[in-house]
Amino acid sequence: MPISFELSATDPGGLARRGRLTTPHGVIDTPAFMPVGTQATVKALTWDEVALTGTQMVLANTYHLYLRPGEDVVEQFGGLHGFTGWRGGVLTDSGGFQVYSLAKLRRVTDDGVTFQSHHDGSSHTFTPESATRTQERLGADVIMCLDDVAGYGEPAQRIEAAMHRSLAWAARCRDAHVTDQALFGIVQGGFDEPLRRESAAGMTALDLPGYAIGGLSVGEPKELMLETLAYAPSLLPPDRPRYLMGVGWPEDIVAAVAAGIDMFDCVLPTRLARNGTAITSEGRINVDSPSWAREDGPLDPECACPTCTSHPRAYLRHLAHAKEILAARLLTLYNVWYYQRLMRTIREAIEEGRFGAWSRGFRSTVPGG
Amino acid sequence: MPISFELSATDPGGLARRGRLTTPHGVIDTPAFMPVGTQATVKALTWDEVALTGTQMVLANTYHLYLRPGEDVVEQFGGLHGFTGWRGGVLTDSGGFQVYSLAKLRRVTDDGVTFQSHHDGSSHTFTPESATRTQERLGADVIMCLDDVAGYGEPAQRIEAAMHRSLAWAARCRDAHVTDQALFGIVQGGFDEPLRRESAAGMTALDLPGYAIGGLSVGEPKELMLETLAYAPSLLPPDRPRYLMGVGWPEDIVAAVAAGIDMFDCVLPTRLARNGTAITSEGRINVDSPSWAREDGPLDPECACPTCTSHPRAYLRHLAHAKEILAARLLTLYNVWYYQRLMRTIREAIEEGRFGAWSRGFRSTVPGG
Repeated sequence: MPISFELSATDPGGLARRGRLTTPHGVIDTPAFMPVGTQATVKALTWDEVALTGTQMVLANTYHLYLRPGEDVVEQFGGLHGFTGWRGGVLTDSGGFQVYSLAKLRRVTDDGVTFQSHHDGSSHTFTPESATRTQERLGADVIMCLDDVAGYGEPAQRIEAAMHRSLAWAARCRDAHVTDQALFGIVQGGFDEPLRRESAAGMTALDLPGYAIGGLSVGEPKELMLETLAYAPSLLPPDRPRYLMGVGWPEDIVAAVAAGIDMFDCVLPTRLARNGTAITSEGRINVDSPSWAREDGPLDPECACPTCTSHPRAYLRHLAHAKEILAARLLTLYNVWYYQRLMRTIREAIEEGRFGAWSRGFRSTVPGG
Repeated sequence: MPISFELSATDPGGLARRGRLTTPHGVIDTPAFMPVGTQATVKALTWDEVALTGTQMVLANTYHLYLRPGEDVVEQFGGLHGFTGWRGGVLTDSGGFQVYSLAKLRRVTDDGVTFQSHHDGSSHTFTPESATRTQERLGADVIMCLDDVAGYGEPAQRIEAAMHRSLAWAARCRDAHVTDQALFGIVQGGFDEPLRRESAAGMTALDLPGYAIGGLSVGEPKELMLETLAYAPSLLPPDRPRYLMGVGWPEDIVAAVAAGIDMFDCVLPTRLARNGTAITSEGRINVDSPSWAREDGPLDPECACPTCTSHPRAYLRHLAHAKEILAARLLTLYNVWYYQRLMRTIREAIEEGRFGAWSRGFRSTVPGG
């Protein structure tokens, strides 16, 4: 069964969309946030806890899972669902971004990308065909075309070449793809509008069931990202889900929803939690603060998650200060819960035609927003 | 409300005892195993999970909690129960053993022990009076007399002096103690039977509500520990709970129960779990083994814990190999569950008068046992 996508509401004064992505593993209400489960685990959480946060879909990283345990192992257990026990939706990225950001000695040709494992330096190659096949064996509901990732600040020529190569690779991924998993394309083109237009047009011509915007949140100034977001989503067909890869902070998600984005993933809520940072309705808080040593009351008074309803701030501060695993657990649960509560609030605001007003209010509460 | 202790069954052919320790925080069925919650958390578990394993009482370390967050903070939240949210029994050690094993530049006099924090080198002193007061403020159900700990291999003169000093300190702890928490004495004396007899007689004369055997499992050959266990518990009054500190492996617990011990604590199930080792009915297993990479089926086929009922061995192996927090979580839950299942089996065997036969069968299954 392939995926289907339907829009149930759009913001009357803007581009925000409320939709439903139906997958073989349940309906994903959009705009949706996917926590990152890099190595087939959302770090510090059980899968029951992931579900408890309201998460309907997670992202897993092909690069990591290809290296270990290997897609053959995952396939033997019926794909990521059977291997992990997670019953909701799964999306795998293509590995392109991780090769760009993690691997050593990356070498890209028109054929594919050769790289050294960040674990042991062993040499590997992803081609559009092999990356697609690997993701087919990992068995996610949504898989991504291999893309050639150029970073912020690289020469214009390299940005353009990476965009064209990503387009050619997407056609090869589509042709190689044999399962009924939904294959999404990734629009590239850096911060150059004509390149983004060309990429989006080329991707649209491939008639894929969904599209991602890649190459944002790669170190550029935030204004540049917001400028790109202002036009990039609308270049994509309105009846397909739009996924903004690797973004981000709550205020960026709200801005991207306003620009017509439907899906998000980001490591921030889980990574920050492991460093002792909570994302709250009043901004980011370092829990390991001397000022919290004797604080009674919950982490976030507005939150009903198990962390906020079970423990005073002083206990969380003690655990974070002592670098206890329970601190990572409780803060990860809290942060992911916060993101999913935010997404629920966003969806309700769109449904009720008041997203514009709500988002203006939200932005006014963000420090520096 | 002070504690009370009653024996409900004894092994007809031996010294094993089945009892109930009633505390302000519930009944603890004995023989009982207390997981260690050093810094007011059983590492990697929530308190709900600790309860799920069947745990009725935990141990927390006074040395660690005195250093951080400080007993004043814990007291402000109503003691360890209020601070952590744990509703079962709590026992705090006196700090003597941690000062011996962790602190730097330890200096013991008749007055007390001065030491440097292993965190920041700051200087601190525990006296019998201050260690008692600190434990009163931490608010555990059972607290321990400060003892002078001598290690295996120290000169006989030092072993004897430490025993006498521990006895004198126990009297001072008893005199200083003002709450209705149960204060247990700790028998010392190394591996010297006359010293152990003198210590036990002196402790018994103090008429404390319970007694521990300290100074075992400190690096000595296992035969020496078993030799001491053969006579040391019987030196203590039969109507008081007997607690063997810091022991240990499942086979040691079974041997100690056979010698008349009622209570145990040990870091092994939690510490080993974080290193990827599972304690199973078939011995210790390193979960991060290539031979498990494709293994279907549960960690321990005899176990009904969430880890064994939710995940195949291959997933656990992958998580342990990738050093994921979820590996520590799932293995800790499993290991503590295993210990509590063992204690339940022991209690039932004593109740039904078949502990001797059961323990012989158990020992025959232990590799090298």
